[in-house]
Amino acid sequence: MLKLTSVFGQTTNWNELSKDQQIALLERPALADSSKLSDTVATIIAQVRSQGDVVLKELAAKFDKVTLENLQVSQAAIDNAVNEISPEVKDAIELAHRQVHAFHLAQKPKDIRVETTPGVVCELRSQPINEVGLYIPGGTAPLPSTVIMTATPAKIAGCKRVIMITPPDENGGVTPEIRYAAKVCGVDALYISGGAQAIAALAYGTESIAPVDKIFGPGNSFVTEAKQQVSQDAKGAAIDMPAGPSEVLVIADKNADPDYVAADLLSQAEHGKDSQVILLTDSVEQAQAVEAATQQQLALLPRQEIAAAALSHSRIIIVNDIAQACEVSNMYAPEHLIVQTDNARQLLPFLENAGSIFLGAYTPESAGDYASGTNHVLPTYGYTKAYSSLNLSSFMKQFTVQELTQAGLNTIGPAIMALAKAESLDAHKNAVGIRLNKQQVLDPTKNDQVN
Amino acid sequence: MLKLTSVFGQTTNWNELSKDQQIALLERPALADSSKLSDTVATIIAQVRSQGDVVLKELAAKFDKVTLENLQVSQAAIDNAVNEISPEVKDAIELAHRQVHAFHLAQKPKDIRVETTPGVVCELRSQPINEVGLYIPGGTAPLPSTVIMTATPAKIAGCKRVIMITPPDENGGVTPEIRYAAKVCGVDALYISGGAQAIAALAYGTESIAPVDKIFGPGNSFVTEAKQQVSQDAKGAAIDMPAGPSEVLVIADKNADPDYVAADLLSQAEHGKDSQVILLTDSVEQAQAVEAATQQQLALLPRQEIAAAALSHSRIIIVNDIAQACEVSNMYAPEHLIVQTDNARQLLPFLENAGSIFLGAYTPESAGDYASGTNHVLPTYGYTKAYSSLNLSSFMKQFTVQELTQAGLNTIGPAIMALAKAESLDAHKNAVGIRLNKQQVLDPTKNDQVN
Repeated sequence: MLKLTSVFGQTTNWNELSKDQQIALLERPALADSSKLSDTVATIIAQVRSQGDVVLKELAAKFDKVTLENLQVSQAAIDNAVNEISPEVKDAIELAHRQVHAFHLAQKPKDIRVETTPGVVCELRSQPINEVGLYIPGGTAPLPSTVIMTATPAKIAGCKRVIMITPPDENGGVTPEIRYAAKVCGVDALYISGGAQAIAALAYGTESIAPVDKIFGPGNSFVTEAKQQVSQDAKGAAIDMPAGPSEVLVIADKNADPDYVAADLLSQAEHGKDSQVILLTDSVEQAQAVEAATQQQLALLPRQEIAAAALSHSRIIIVNDIAQACEVSNMYAPEHLIVQTDNARQLLPFLENAGSIFLGAYTPESAGDYASGTNHVLPTYGYTKAYSSLNLSSFMKQFTVQELTQAGLNTIGPAIMALAKAESLDAHKNAVGIRLNKQQVLDPTKNDQVN
Repeated sequence: MLKLTSVFGQTTNWNELSKDQQIALLERPALADSSKLSDTVATIIAQVRSQGDVVLKELAAKFDKVTLENLQVSQAAIDNAVNEISPEVKDAIELAHRQVHAFHLAQKPKDIRVETTPGVVCELRSQPINEVGLYIPGGTAPLPSTVIMTATPAKIAGCKRVIMITPPDENGGVTPEIRYAAKVCGVDALYISGGAQAIAALAYGTESIAPVDKIFGPGNSFVTEAKQQVSQDAKGAAIDMPAGPSEVLVIADKNADPDYVAADLLSQAEHGKDSQVILLTDSVEQAQAVEAATQQQLALLPRQEIAAAALSHSRIIIVNDIAQACEVSNMYAPEHLIVQTDNARQLLPFLENAGSIFLGAYTPESAGDYASGTNHVLPTYGYTKAYSSLNLSSFMKQFTVQELTQAGLNTIGPAIMALAKAESLDAHKNAVGIRLNKQQVLDPTKNDQVN
């Protein structure tokens, strides 16, 4: 097994591992399965359900050390945000919104109509979810980009009520970047509350905040646990997707620029100490060059300590060729997948499981995090095998419509009756029979004539 | 308040109720929140995870009173099913499959590609979920129709492995109807096991059954609880949707045929004692006629006792007009919504929340249950407000791709850097900066030139 002294946790040759070792190498660290967290969150949710606004204010005082007079941000504060941010940030928010808007607008669904048999019309239609709530992480690390990623598609989908909730900053307010992003995106109301209590307010409502049908957005472990709990309650709310630590997998061949690869790995590593970072390459020289570049760039980062911690459990995996890199990537099923190879696009048909794919030298992950137009709310922790990345349809629901003529029912009616009989569901059969021949069905002795 | 002696639980004039009474009238009964069920299911799941096949066989002996030699149904038994069913049922299965196939084939997604800015290409793509497991209720009430509803879209989606699991019949086998439906739909393997243990096998695998990425299909309370539990475990499996008792809401005006309305209400009522049945009408005469017709038809039903129990907590609600019926329906958000009014189609724009809508006199619910082409796996219990009906996309996942040219990154790069800086994510900023100007980013003192 190849070993390099490294800021990376492990450098491994894939083909020197047994099948079990390969699986173990791609294992994500177990999530803290804390019944204490679960109980704490359940208690907070119960408190918000029974006492409402006062709990949101009490917990803001307790956890955020601020006094909240009003839970809702005033329209004046939203309107004034533009005066509190730099022109660069203003322009950047507007550009990102335009980009995200353009891409999600193109996702508008078309209704589908099929006449499956003459006289039998089936339709698949989409409808916006009426009321949605967006949780925006705040406090010391406010994320205006997450406002854009969630509010923009919500408005395009046509949700009737799009509300946002975010923890207070140190003054009990909301940073101007988030207020301005909310303004640009057309959010209907902006509330101040963080953590599990904010999720409880969105799901069940309080005096100030009417409940929503579905909750979107990332958050800390309290937020994640609260989202999980309210999504398990039929009286709660749906949620966007399950959550886990953020992660990137980079596939790089010998021609990739190691400085770019290192920068992409580091931009994932700085997210948090639990961030997952994996490099797959078929070139030992490339692995060594990325290693050197990473050390060099890391030394200059303000969030060096976080990034170093994340890198300490990261992996460089040497594969035989890029085809094998694709196989390993499919096994891992990364949230972000960066492909820095010759002809990166040609690998697309072989990449099965990923939240968002970044092709080529000039497509860093941060492009998708902010402004390419794609969404940055993505399934992680292996969930890309079965869950979709956030997109316009996440803010809509699909339902069906059917309409039969008498002739249509005549055609498929006998099959319906035969199947209903096979399933011992006589009333299902009668609902057709009575239409085909009302007299017959009311006298079951004559049923076989229709059946 | 209007009262009729009735097989229906309650007949109520909507406009004589207070707002709170209206909300209470549409409340669904609380689901049994049994921590005993939850513990039992958790124990079964843990047993299957640790001991595999032997547990499936032990529990089949214990609960199903059968000895299972093999957990997998042989190809010979699948091939021979056609000789064990009537020509009517054979034709009905084939017709239903053709209908469902035609409607779901039309749902094939088109990839979306947008150049959001010159040199910035964003794509939304769909990919089949690799491995899916279908749970088909069996035992005394085998449901070949559910095979068709789940396996047909799974195969169209292109899932690589489509397996099915169903409880044993009294001989330890699988009814020929289910075997034949599996054959017609092209299911890859058919296993025998029911209840929570079957769900555990699909989610975690056993010696005989490799695990799947997502589980589909209805089931009893053990199955539902097991699906919920495995969906909450990152090492488990995704599931199609949360479950609840089946339900129908019928909107009928004075011109509807009361015999048809009664037949549709009864075909829902016979599903189970917990089935929900609601009639909305603006005509007291219609309500009375439906009442009489229901009593008459009920007397002839084999599943009379179940249907009567379901009807005993059903509701007839008198509304002012059909517009108000639509509002009440939107509040209730039914799984099945039958519209038997003049010009039923014209009501569509006003109907917001429903799993499947049945328009007009000749469109009974059983059409959609079996053979119109629409799917019968639908969100219920109010989940139609935020969840989609089962459709082709349920068997796929959507992900994004982006590809930037150097010019594209030059255009949006400064905005990315400004937002990354605003969010204190310097490595995100560097990943762009290093591409715009490698020298600059390695020396942070020069950063403002790019920023």
